[in-house]
Amino acid sequence: MVVILKNNVKQEEIQGLIAHLTGLGVEVHPIIGNTQSILGLVGDTSKLDPSMIQSHRIVEKVMYVQEPFKKANKVFHPENSVISVKDHLIGGKALSVMAGPCSVESYEQVLEIAKSIKASGAGVLRGGAFKPRTSPYSFQGMGSEGLEILKQVRKETGLPIVTELMSLEWLDKFVEDVDIIQIGARNMSNFDLLKEVGKSKTPILLKRGMSSTIEEFLMSAEYIMSEGNENVILCERGIRTFETYTRNTLDLSIVPAIKKLSHLPIIVDPSHAAGMWWMVEPLAKAAIAAGADGLMIEVHNDPANAKCDGQQSIKPAKFDALMTKLKKIAEVEEREI
Amino acid sequence: MVVILKNNVKQEEIQGLIAHLTGLGVEVHPIIGNTQSILGLVGDTSKLDPSMIQSHRIVEKVMYVQEPFKKANKVFHPENSVISVKDHLIGGKALSVMAGPCSVESYEQVLEIAKSIKASGAGVLRGGAFKPRTSPYSFQGMGSEGLEILKQVRKETGLPIVTELMSLEWLDKFVEDVDIIQIGARNMSNFDLLKEVGKSKTPILLKRGMSSTIEEFLMSAEYIMSEGNENVILCERGIRTFETYTRNTLDLSIVPAIKKLSHLPIIVDPSHAAGMWWMVEPLAKAAIAAGADGLMIEVHNDPANAKCDGQQSIKPAKFDALMTKLKKIAEVEEREI
Amino acid sequence: MVVILKNNVKQEEIQGLIAHLTGLGVEVHPIIGNTQSILGLVGDTSKLDPSMIQSHRIVEKVMYVQEPFKKANKVFHPENSVISVKDHLIGGKALSVMAGPCSVESYEQVLEIAKSIKASGAGVLRGGAFKPRTSPYSFQGMGSEGLEILKQVRKETGLPIVTELMSLEWLDKFVEDVDIIQIGARNMSNFDLLKEVGKSKTPILLKRGMSSTIEEFLMSAEYIMSEGNENVILCERGIRTFETYTRNTLDLSIVPAIKKLSHLPIIVDPSHAAGMWWMVEPLAKAAIAAGADGLMIEVHNDPANAKCDGQQSIKPAKFDALMTKLKKIAEVEEREI
Amino acid sequence: MVVILKNNVKQEEIQGLIAHLTGLGVEVHPIIGNTQSILGLVGDTSKLDPSMIQSHRIVEKVMYVQEPFKKANKVFHPENSVISVKDHLIGGKALSVMAGPCSVESYEQVLEIAKSIKASGAGVLRGGAFKPRTSPYSFQGMGSEGLEILKQVRKETGLPIVTELMSLEWLDKFVEDVDIIQIGARNMSNFDLLKEVGKSKTPILLKRGMSSTIEEFLMSAEYIMSEGNENVILCERGIRTFETYTRNTLDLSIVPAIKKLSHLPIIVDPSHAAGMWWMVEPLAKAAIAAGADGLMIEVHNDPANAKCDGQQSIKPAKFDALMTKLKKIAEVEEREI
Repeated sequence: MVVILKNNVKQEEIQGLIAHLTGLGVEVHPIIGNTQSILGLVGDTSKLDPSMIQSHRIVEKVMYVQEPFKKANKVFHPENSVISVKDHLIGGKALSVMAGPCSVESYEQVLEIAKSIKASGAGVLRGGAFKPRTSPYSFQGMGSEGLEILKQVRKETGLPIVTELMSLEWLDKFVEDVDIIQIGARNMSNFDLLKEVGKSKTPILLKRGMSSTIEEFLMSAEYIMSEGNENVILCERGIRTFETYTRNTLDLSIVPAIKKLSHLPIIVDPSHAAGMWWMVEPLAKAAIAAGADGLMIEVHNDPANAKCDGQQSIKPAKFDALMTKLKKIAEVEEREI
Repeated sequence: MVVILKNNVKQEEIQGLIAHLTGLGVEVHPIIGNTQSILGLVGDTSKLDPSMIQSHRIVEKVMYVQEPFKKANKVFHPENSVISVKDHLIGGKALSVMAGPCSVESYEQVLEIAKSIKASGAGVLRGGAFKPRTSPYSFQGMGSEGLEILKQVRKETGLPIVTELMSLEWLDKFVEDVDIIQIGARNMSNFDLLKEVGKSKTPILLKRGMSSTIEEFLMSAEYIMSEGNENVILCERGIRTFETYTRNTLDLSIVPAIKKLSHLPIIVDPSHAAGMWWMVEPLAKAAIAAGADGLMIEVHNDPANAKCDGQQSIKPAKFDALMTKLKKIAEVEEREI
Repeated sequence: MVVILKNNVKQEEIQGLIAHLTGLGVEVHPIIGNTQSILGLVGDTSKLDPSMIQSHRIVEKVMYVQEPFKKANKVFHPENSVISVKDHLIGGKALSVMAGPCSVESYEQVLEIAKSIKASGAGVLRGGAFKPRTSPYSFQGMGSEGLEILKQVRKETGLPIVTELMSLEWLDKFVEDVDIIQIGARNMSNFDLLKEVGKSKTPILLKRGMSSTIEEFLMSAEYIMSEGNENVILCERGIRTFETYTRNTLDLSIVPAIKKLSHLPIIVDPSHAAGMWWMVEPLAKAAIAAGADGLMIEVHNDPANAKCDGQQSIKPAKFDALMTKLKKIAEVEEREI
Repeated sequence: MVVILKNNVKQEEIQGLIAHLTGLGVEVHPIIGNTQSILGLVGDTSKLDPSMIQSHRIVEKVMYVQEPFKKANKVFHPENSVISVKDHLIGGKALSVMAGPCSVESYEQVLEIAKSIKASGAGVLRGGAFKPRTSPYSFQGMGSEGLEILKQVRKETGLPIVTELMSLEWLDKFVEDVDIIQIGARNMSNFDLLKEVGKSKTPILLKRGMSSTIEEFLMSAEYIMSEGNENVILCERGIRTFETYTRNTLDLSIVPAIKKLSHLPIIVDPSHAAGMWWMVEPLAKAAIAAGADGLMIEVHNDPANAKCDGQQSIKPAKFDALMTKLKKIAEVEEREI
């Protein structure tokens, strides 16, 4: 950590600050200039709260040198993590493709889609039972009934299931019933929820918040991991920018960035990013070419009558054709589906 | 609502869509062009889910004409709402100033600050007992002990208290103990939390999410109101942009926008917006000049040793001087503090 | 175009506006609701200025149905355009790779790099003679001397050259000397410059502005095309967002978007987007997988001593290895390099 | 400047870099940690190009300690600059209000508006002769004819005039004819134009680019000043964010930021920021309360028939009423109009 001091600060004030910082357990290396001085802090600075240092009136600003996350940090865990969901692996050589409808609508719907995506090579079934909707007047999901449908379809197809948890009150049920618990973009900074799912051992699919930096995203993973659950799968799903043509702007730079900064696997959701079904194919291929560990794709057998987000869902036949293309890109990347 | 159709769509497909939309309870007025056609929908379109319409493959895009919020909408409630917190009013002629430390640290600290801000004219005491922090290794607040301190200080000073609720598990206690429940920026789209606080009657201070549009902000208010609690106070606290000099970019345009769109009161938090204590005064004055109904300001007796966000807190003497200036701006606006 | 009127507007005011709009040469279809009315405009609305309509006090807002660009629009030109630069084609089955140093530093440097990238399969040599730099104290490029170097290297290698034009005063020289004139991101809305290059026949590489929407980007292409020069190559190079880990956020969604909206070719510059050399490979591969028509890549023989942007340049050997991988991705896309 | 090195770099590589940096004329203070080292650079670092340092492969990142601008920097020029335009002063105790139509449409129009705003207390007449428009098919301004009209109205009313320069080819004429040359937001990074106006002595009104940081804005001022013209007036006019309700997001935090960082005056343009006439009043008042040195406001006698941006123009009577309110806010700020 580097602490930049204000111009023309008195020597004794600097000494006071140095003493204070030393007391917090770090080594302080001062560089005293004619008008401006800086302090270099060496040691375990991840426990220091930069805002506390910044609140000293002689401090101009505080800059991180080391990343503030530890358990998610590649420096301390150079091998890439591979997360096991039954016999499905995420983060290894094989890519993980999670597919299914935006929301669970009926047993027949989910079963039909599940059989189809499985035949095309998907490894995990996605489907929302509890849906976060912008409007309180929109369909909010089937709730626990939806969860039961997912469980039945899992039994029938053998596909593990991933579905979104929106509230602590359902946590125990999710831990019991679900293979991967999804924390949605809107709850990426719901720290109480992160801590609680961190106490379970269930793999967590953590989606990037719409205005979350890469560092904040990894800090949210750190919240989960610091409670003991290191089975975190990151998921890029687009960020909010000034561009309005797409619903969100898919940020594929995050894929190499995460590969450099962290050992956690990262997958990409092209359906939510663009919000338009015809963009799913090019963005899915691009994600794999950029090095992503997998994809999450919305597939619906009847998008025009979907209860939510039909405009971004592709049909099973289109998904099947996409998988064929993805396999070829995966090969170039020396990976497989 | 206006539905734009794709180019060169067949007549029978258009007729099918019109029949479908009419079945949803709205009048459909088609405008058929040579290459492109549009459908104008008249009636109560707030119940229509635009994504469902958009998922029809002949639809290019769907545009709202009327705002999707109803209970928060000025059209259906032309008089400005005034929220009562005991005998303190928010949204009336008098401005509401909420002040206090970022986090509750001790009884003595909060009491000293509370007495001071009350003497300067503040009407509500703020203070965090549960703190949302980016890092799991930072101070997370005193929790229920902090809540007890706030209650004691309220008893001593008579100031109503506002503090942030982060999790459903504390809701009952908050409803019993707190005068205004704050929903923080990070939870603005935590819809389950919004629905639950909507079932209480306690006034809710809803902060704008960092990447929330004005419309989404009002839809979150709508979530609370649709459950029966119409005592919602909106709070602008800065949005996330490319500018890194300030922590967030305070968006004061939201003040006249809310005054036009909604009857709910709106206050401004200049401390969190800029993240720097010396910006609090100019931004606070600007907020009042723009027509805000009040302010939320961080005041700390010893910012350099604050347990959080000391760099954005002002000292009681500075707060007192600021209040004097604010009173003059309020007068120009024909309001009072 | 759809014109949304304010609530409770008088009938005669609506009739006045309809007469006014009809006078501008479009058909007006009114949909009169109980409280709110809308006007659907049919015909060639590209000549209407929406801000002029919006300035009527009874108008709430104006929404486009058709895109405001014409010559760049795929609707009026369904075949993809292929731009010829001597015998190098851009926008056809073969991908176009433009490579070279950020800035021209010496004849030897450019020649060495040019020979190397040509051997690896690049089709165009890039190199800045005039450099737009944030600081007036940074190296501003070699100017006309740099241009001469590029010409000599072209003579030696046969590679066509692309370089940035920053000012009208150099236009004639560029038209004479350069194979592709680059308009940089900072000048994307320098409309006078766009109009003037539009009067030449030289192919124009137009880079997307840092805060430009896809529509504005196409409108800038339209500026050039409306003057007669239809040889426009679009180039995505990252947009400005809140994310600070990368210098810009590469927006690959623009590739399928442009393919849908326009007939113009689009290439991607991963070097400027991320601003870090180790991100060039994954982003270059992703761009091709997303369907881009080519790439612009910074290659330097000695990045540590480059006079600008060395941190985002890759070395010739790395470029060669990248080209091998790109060829495989291109094959999957049924394209070639 | 602080240079952060990569982890586990060899001693001799560090020594090599230190020697290189010392050779550039700065003192280097190394802080060698167990895994990570940093170098503190002391001296005049404004001449160092951070991207050149960053291109060393052992460098992780480079962080500025001192601002990269010098002539615009308050540190080297602690007194606020006051710019004289004839006997009108900008940056002193008196606020500067510039008002007039978006574009010059006719002599009668401009004269009528000019007389009216002068009577209300405006000190400068604004009006566009050359207009930067998103569409090549929109009205592009009256050009030199518009300039003549402005000159005639200046003669008649005595008001100095400010108008936008879009292209070098008109520079000489502007220097001769115009009192303040405006550089628009779209040309803020048109460095060639900045350098050329920097060679004149005419005061320059520099508008902030839509995606420009505060630092980049000051660096553009530095471009002008480094050529000798220190008469730069900064103008905030809104930045581009995800919010679509307003055309741009007015960033009033820039006002105290500029007051801290620079000695240059800063005014605010609420008309372009919001893009809606009814937001002009609250945002204008807020700007003055935040400490701005003045305002630029669009006033039109017949907004519904304005040739551009009528939707954001206010009528003369409204402007007059606004000025009365602004005078009261100015008094509170101990300034005057």
